[in-house]
Amino acid sequence: MKIVVVGLGVIGGSFTMALKEAGYDDVCGIDINKETLEKAIKLGLIKEGFTSGEEIVKSADLIIISLYPRLVKQFIADNKDNFKDGAVITDATGIKKMFIEDIVNILPDNIDFVFGHPMAGREKKGIDFATSQVFKGANYILTPVDRNKEENLKLIEDIVYRIGFKRVRRITPEYHDEMIGFTSQLPHALAVALVNSDVEGRDTGSFIGDSYRDLTRIANINEDLWSELFLGNKENLLISIQDFENELDKIKHGIENNDKECLKELFIKSTKRREKL
Amino acid sequence: MKIVVVGLGVIGGSFTMALKEAGYDDVCGIDINKETLEKAIKLGLIKEGFTSGEEIVKSADLIIISLYPRLVKQFIADNKDNFKDGAVITDATGIKKMFIEDIVNILPDNIDFVFGHPMAGREKKGIDFATSQVFKGANYILTPVDRNKEENLKLIEDIVYRIGFKRVRRITPEYHDEMIGFTSQLPHALAVALVNSDVEGRDTGSFIGDSYRDLTRIANINEDLWSELFLGNKENLLISIQDFENELDKIKHGIENNDKECLKELFIKSTKRREKL
Repeated sequence: MKIVVVGLGVIGGSFTMALKEAGYDDVCGIDINKETLEKAIKLGLIKEGFTSGEEIVKSADLIIISLYPRLVKQFIADNKDNFKDGAVITDATGIKKMFIEDIVNILPDNIDFVFGHPMAGREKKGIDFATSQVFKGANYILTPVDRNKEENLKLIEDIVYRIGFKRVRRITPEYHDEMIGFTSQLPHALAVALVNSDVEGRDTGSFIGDSYRDLTRIANINEDLWSELFLGNKENLLISIQDFENELDKIKHGIENNDKECLKELFIKSTKRREKL
Repeated sequence: MKIVVVGLGVIGGSFTMALKEAGYDDVCGIDINKETLEKAIKLGLIKEGFTSGEEIVKSADLIIISLYPRLVKQFIADNKDNFKDGAVITDATGIKKMFIEDIVNILPDNIDFVFGHPMAGREKKGIDFATSQVFKGANYILTPVDRNKEENLKLIEDIVYRIGFKRVRRITPEYHDEMIGFTSQLPHALAVALVNSDVEGRDTGSFIGDSYRDLTRIANINEDLWSELFLGNKENLLISIQDFENELDKIKHGIENNDKECLKELFIKSTKRREKL
């Protein structure tokens, strides 16, 4: 099976490493950055590197795309006449519903796109931060669509387990986006707002403990990727933000009214929920 | 020097451990829980244990109080006729301005209370989770008041360095509360609101990665302590919440208006600020 990984950033690079370790030896890479391709070849992660799809895509059985959402669409549009008949494509995009609709509109009929989301990542970008370790024990989500063939869903599931993921679940794109809006996008929005709400010029660094450090780690954020993810899931994210604000208001009112019992109830609720995780 | 630690919970217990390791061998403990006192004696952390202050406080040169804010006031009121002339008292309370005003009102003139805040803690409570390690390399804050004697401020600074803290700063109670409202209390409020805003019955556990885990760790919160801390610093905390909400609104409006450039600017700002920490 000839595999092509498109986009050798931190996730695509990690895919090539994990595939190599799992014994897949016919893996090529596509990246617009020639230095990145050279690094990947030097590390033995890919057999050959290409700066565009035209040539290599024609012989690929499986294409793993790790690009920003907008660029995935672009790649499909650019290569729609190049894909091998019956080729399987998968992705690592963190949003699904709107994204899938866009892709399905331009995808040739003889190509099967299995939409996936590895629940693993790093704040850093680029192949230098790629590591197969990030996949070990993590969750993987597939969001099947009607046109997917069962054998191709199974193919991706099989590879995903081989490269170290612990659990693969199939859910609807709608449920994926609802949950990711809450568990991933909302925390990123809160971390950004927390850091940005600091008053300029204060000696904040001298007053931070683990709590501020933990809550703001993901405020170090890839602006190109996350602006696309936020806008590609806007309705769910806005609902999550609203739900969050309602809960923060309860705390605020508890403080304003000197209502200790109210605060204690909110803290007991959050403690119980957090312990269950 | 005879030292008495009042309240052998996670912080008070850690004080007894750190004092022992630093070579202080005349340390006694006060706690309402007899089992806790027995544990502390068994571990060799205190010479003797008492369930109230009356007797032991009379001979104490230094008293370290690690109780909830309300109980610190109660302890001072209960023992105001027991303290040794010239005794030094210090505390570990996470709020200062209102708290100090309350204490100074009831404190005998011949007693010097040096107000302090070890910037170290754990989510767990009780002596079983005490460890001197939590102090190693951490920051310590002193908030001197006019009546403090310089020699007593120096005494506390000296002990604090000996038991493992890396840096001791002297600041005003007002500045302490402003900064702690932002770096400690606001993150706790956000973590609680985030966990409580989850929709009941969803399979959230299957969709969490490091970001949700990191942002909600401190939603596991001691409700008695933190309700007192929030209400004891209400003005600063409400300002921090308001500043935070203004920043979250900017993100919300960026999403509502499909304004990618606005979102990118906010993310670039938070990334720069986070990297500086």
